[in-house]
Amino acid sequence: MKKFNVVIVGASGAVGQELLKILDERNFPVGELRLCATSRSAGKVMLFKDQPYQVEITTPDSFNGMDIALFAGGIASKEFGSAAVERGAVVIDNSSNYRMDPAVPLVVPEVNPEDVKWHQGIIANPNCSTIQLVVALKPIHDAAKIKRVVVATYQAVSGAGREGIEELTGQTRAVLDQGEITPKIFPYPIAFNLIPHIDVFMDLDYTKEEWKMVKETQKILHDDAIAVTATTVRVPVYRSHSEAVNIETHRKITAQEAKRLFESFPGIVVIDDPGAKLYPMPLFASNRDEVFIGRIREDNSIPNGLNIWVVADQIRKGAATNAVQIAELLVEYGCLMNN
Amino acid sequence: MKKFNVVIVGASGAVGQELLKILDERNFPVGELRLCATSRSAGKVMLFKDQPYQVEITTPDSFNGMDIALFAGGIASKEFGSAAVERGAVVIDNSSNYRMDPAVPLVVPEVNPEDVKWHQGIIANPNCSTIQLVVALKPIHDAAKIKRVVVATYQAVSGAGREGIEELTGQTRAVLDQGEITPKIFPYPIAFNLIPHIDVFMDLDYTKEEWKMVKETQKILHDDAIAVTATTVRVPVYRSHSEAVNIETHRKITAQEAKRLFESFPGIVVIDDPGAKLYPMPLFASNRDEVFIGRIREDNSIPNGLNIWVVADQIRKGAATNAVQIAELLVEYGCLMNN
Repeated sequence: MKKFNVVIVGASGAVGQELLKILDERNFPVGELRLCATSRSAGKVMLFKDQPYQVEITTPDSFNGMDIALFAGGIASKEFGSAAVERGAVVIDNSSNYRMDPAVPLVVPEVNPEDVKWHQGIIANPNCSTIQLVVALKPIHDAAKIKRVVVATYQAVSGAGREGIEELTGQTRAVLDQGEITPKIFPYPIAFNLIPHIDVFMDLDYTKEEWKMVKETQKILHDDAIAVTATTVRVPVYRSHSEAVNIETHRKITAQEAKRLFESFPGIVVIDDPGAKLYPMPLFASNRDEVFIGRIREDNSIPNGLNIWVVADQIRKGAATNAVQIAELLVEYGCLMNN
Repeated sequence: MKKFNVVIVGASGAVGQELLKILDERNFPVGELRLCATSRSAGKVMLFKDQPYQVEITTPDSFNGMDIALFAGGIASKEFGSAAVERGAVVIDNSSNYRMDPAVPLVVPEVNPEDVKWHQGIIANPNCSTIQLVVALKPIHDAAKIKRVVVATYQAVSGAGREGIEELTGQTRAVLDQGEITPKIFPYPIAFNLIPHIDVFMDLDYTKEEWKMVKETQKILHDDAIAVTATTVRVPVYRSHSEAVNIETHRKITAQEAKRLFESFPGIVVIDDPGAKLYPMPLFASNRDEVFIGRIREDNSIPNGLNIWVVADQIRKGAATNAVQIAELLVEYGCLMNN
């Protein structure tokens, strides 16, 4: 079987570590593997299939001979993206740097796999909150055409990386032991609190996170007519984002029909049996690759309304798993540059 | 100054304790005070204005000579409500037992104070999530007529009383110390988790909590044409409920206009300055009596849309404060039975 040389940029962070784990779990045909990061993490040793790999400082030459460059996030893809492409690697970028670039496909493999085919060297991985949203919306949109979506998010601290996780743990201990709290990563204490502010504020007082959910959803579903409005909120949960999603469709869709559509869509697991107290929760979605949907209810406040509750591990499906699935599509469609 | 005899039924619980505190803080003209509860709490001593009061077992005679009976919650008002009324007390009931009874006013003093005037002995205090919602909706409804509301809640564990608080603390310690968790009050672990299930499941797979937000809102605003749909979620926060509220009005209302309307409405505090990272959060709303509103944004996914974020202490404004405010209205309007 043909193998592919893979470099991970930002390998030592939360998403980078998960990328490594998922390449292994999904048995991606890795040839040569290179782990890169900033000087802060260089020298660190990480394991892949029981073999040690030393993290190197990213340089343009890190991409020599590589087929696929997985960028975990941050500004690295701005700095090294074109160097990677020039050297023949296809970049799969988890940052927001290129997502809205019309020359860059924004891909969720269950939703718009064909878009990988027109890449020009870079493919963007959508924002975590968007990925699980569009997976849920796609079967409904195909069946009944979505008119409008109102979404409120409940986002885990690991969306802010490992420092976010450590901050929640540290602050939680401090609250329980009556200690002092000094927020670092989040603007206010997150332990036993909610912060309705993720990423920076932009137009009309919406945050960048909220705009991402609007714009990326329209781009991935190829439909600027889908109206989306979002309120994004950080919650004291370690892992997995949750979303209360209200959907208005052009054609009426029953809860029963929605449930069937979700059940037959790849990557979705329906957990929806109120009588048995079964519904998705972040605690049970973590370390899973699927998007979990429950609380499926007709919304009779409008003629064609639907409410759903969507939970997914935002480090896996919301980032690393989705990126590796894109790599798999590149192989399947023969869209690598050295193919 | 005339004084009024007050009995608190369920005095030892979270809401009962808060009622006592608020009667003191607001200098309610308390004459004789009687504290009642079930046999489990009888004998307990509680302080009011530095005087000790012993908690007694509730009996029909607990209401002899009382002007106002504050029922903290639960089934007590079903058991003793009519006995209280027969003895000349006006019942202010924090339970859901009588809220949808057409013969019982459901009152939020800032919103529909006049409704106390037609009471027949019992006045119902609305559900905590509803109270803060209708305070936010009222000025918008008066100015631009509300057509539809989509709300997602983030509800604190103290909504389930003191046991809810203890369960969050116990489970949080267990998670940090790698211990075992056995849920008691909540159906699943709540520490570092979210549970999209509050109260029992009912029609169309909505929970009773969700239906309360629909039906009580319509009753309080005297307008069954206001369409409401809700998703209610328990979050690992000790105190204060938060709500992401999307509002569609008949007339267009700008964010600026909405902000002015909120600012001039009694009981509302606007915290909304994204540039200075100012928005309401449960940590800072707790132990306050006001409803805090921020993240006020026009929602351009529809012609007349508005998004807001509403936070309030659900034990105070969502329960005890609202009940004492109703008692104040009864005094002000001369609506007590012995007046």
